[in-house]
Amino acid sequence: MTALTTDFEQPTMDDYPTRKSTEPALLYRKDPVVWGTPADGPMDQSSLDSFDEKGYLQVESLVTPEEVEKYRAELDRLAGDEDLKRDERTVVERSSNEVRSIFEVHKISEVFADLVRDPRVVGRARQLLGSDVYIHQSRVNYKPGFGGGDFYWHSDFETWHAEDGMPRPRALSLSLALTDNYPYNGPLMIMPGSHKTYVSCVGETPEEHFRESLKKQEIGTPDQASLSILADKHGIDLLTGPAGGGLFFDCNCMHGSGGNISPYPRSNVFIVFNSVENTCVEPFAAPSPRPPFIGARDFTPVR
Amino acid sequence: MTALTTDFEQPTMDDYPTRKSTEPALLYRKDPVVWGTPADGPMDQSSLDSFDEKGYLQVESLVTPEEVEKYRAELDRLAGDEDLKRDERTVVERSSNEVRSIFEVHKISEVFADLVRDPRVVGRARQLLGSDVYIHQSRVNYKPGFGGGDFYWHSDFETWHAEDGMPRPRALSLSLALTDNYPYNGPLMIMPGSHKTYVSCVGETPEEHFRESLKKQEIGTPDQASLSILADKHGIDLLTGPAGGGLFFDCNCMHGSGGNISPYPRSNVFIVFNSVENTCVEPFAAPSPRPPFIGARDFTPVR
Repeated sequence: MTALTTDFEQPTMDDYPTRKSTEPALLYRKDPVVWGTPADGPMDQSSLDSFDEKGYLQVESLVTPEEVEKYRAELDRLAGDEDLKRDERTVVERSSNEVRSIFEVHKISEVFADLVRDPRVVGRARQLLGSDVYIHQSRVNYKPGFGGGDFYWHSDFETWHAEDGMPRPRALSLSLALTDNYPYNGPLMIMPGSHKTYVSCVGETPEEHFRESLKKQEIGTPDQASLSILADKHGIDLLTGPAGGGLFFDCNCMHGSGGNISPYPRSNVFIVFNSVENTCVEPFAAPSPRPPFIGARDFTPVR
Repeated sequence: MTALTTDFEQPTMDDYPTRKSTEPALLYRKDPVVWGTPADGPMDQSSLDSFDEKGYLQVESLVTPEEVEKYRAELDRLAGDEDLKRDERTVVERSSNEVRSIFEVHKISEVFADLVRDPRVVGRARQLLGSDVYIHQSRVNYKPGFGGGDFYWHSDFETWHAEDGMPRPRALSLSLALTDNYPYNGPLMIMPGSHKTYVSCVGETPEEHFRESLKKQEIGTPDQASLSILADKHGIDLLTGPAGGGLFFDCNCMHGSGGNISPYPRSNVFIVFNSVENTCVEPFAAPSPRPPFIGARDFTPVR
């Protein structure tokens, strides 16, 4: 009898509800942050502990200056590809029609396919997530100077859970800086420690929400009271550093970035690894999953 | 004959031409930055030298925490005054209809009238400008959190020269912080040393330009190539620090501020002192002067 009841209730339970209520809420994370040990990869215990505590880890010189040059050249090549500009995987800036992001770069470009498989990259992802991993999303971002827009606060996991059907927060992102990040050119900001709190957002996801949300996020946006609580509790870290640095961060970090009026553009490669033990199901709060170039439905592990 | 020629040419000469050509230009500043000596006021030689070199000076605790409270209360009182909200001296944010600035606060509020006359304030202005001074402009600024807009790069003097008829760069501003300025809540950014270069801007000032330019500056905006040259040469300083701090900066500093997605709003009092030996004449590049609450036509010295 117990087994039957469990079977019946299981599908309706959701530890990370969002976009279903008219009231926002702060919920405790119910999953670990770090799943592996020092024996599982290149990082020592103190690095793993720091990731667990803050929700992110900066690796200076994750790649060499020569590799940065190679990736930048590839970025330029992709941004100049007129066919690719018309591809649905390419996002252009509303005001200027400049390329802002290109999705699924690990499939579009052999250079970035190699990067994803690099032990310095996937090795850390496997170690943190304690399993084989696959690419949930990859993209390159171009953030222009002289007025590039901001990216409002959000948890990636909230979106991936609601719109892509990612069951639990057992995923992480790598942002590899291809330009120097200064305090004044709109670097990523993270509320360190915020990844242990899940902000349940209000509102309902409309059909084909991704078309708008890639340009400017509105639904799935944390409420101001929750953001104030998290910022007062955790503070805000600016993730600055030279090109070539890698920032690994947990999927539930509250993060965003300011605008950039400086003359210095920012570019990075962004790779999302998800555990093969956490593959996506039906969306938890959207009519249908986003297209696979935004949230993969192919769970083949990176080898 | 020589004298006649000079007389004829003099009125058409302008050491700081702007908005008259289709090409931007970088011109050398032809005037001193610091006009006084340590004997003339509260600042020592090294402070004066630093102002001369960087174009700005931060004074920690220019006012006491109790005074900060007093000024913040006055700010709240003014922002809540519905009559004042309809006053032409009040600027509201385009998107939210929130009060963004109130001009001529030293005339509207006795509290800020006292601040302007305070020896810690006007004493430093007189010392730097080497003469009696009057108020060219005063205002309070409210920069909301959760998405307050940016302010693009500009030199105040370019505008004051073009639109208010300020002959030469012998003026300065005080920004008194009434909230803490963090790297992540859109603090003022200055290119240190940029005050010694004058960026001549392209374009022509339209009629009643001030109505739009107070919300979003477009005409009189430095070109991107000039900004890149100045930023590469001088770098960019973020002016952070706790409430109560005063920032004195030269009228020709290239400065701006980023947006503010953080939960922490920013407010300050902003006072522009001009030398009584530099009183305004007809605008150098506009059909008529801006209204006196933006650029004063009453040159009575502060006493």
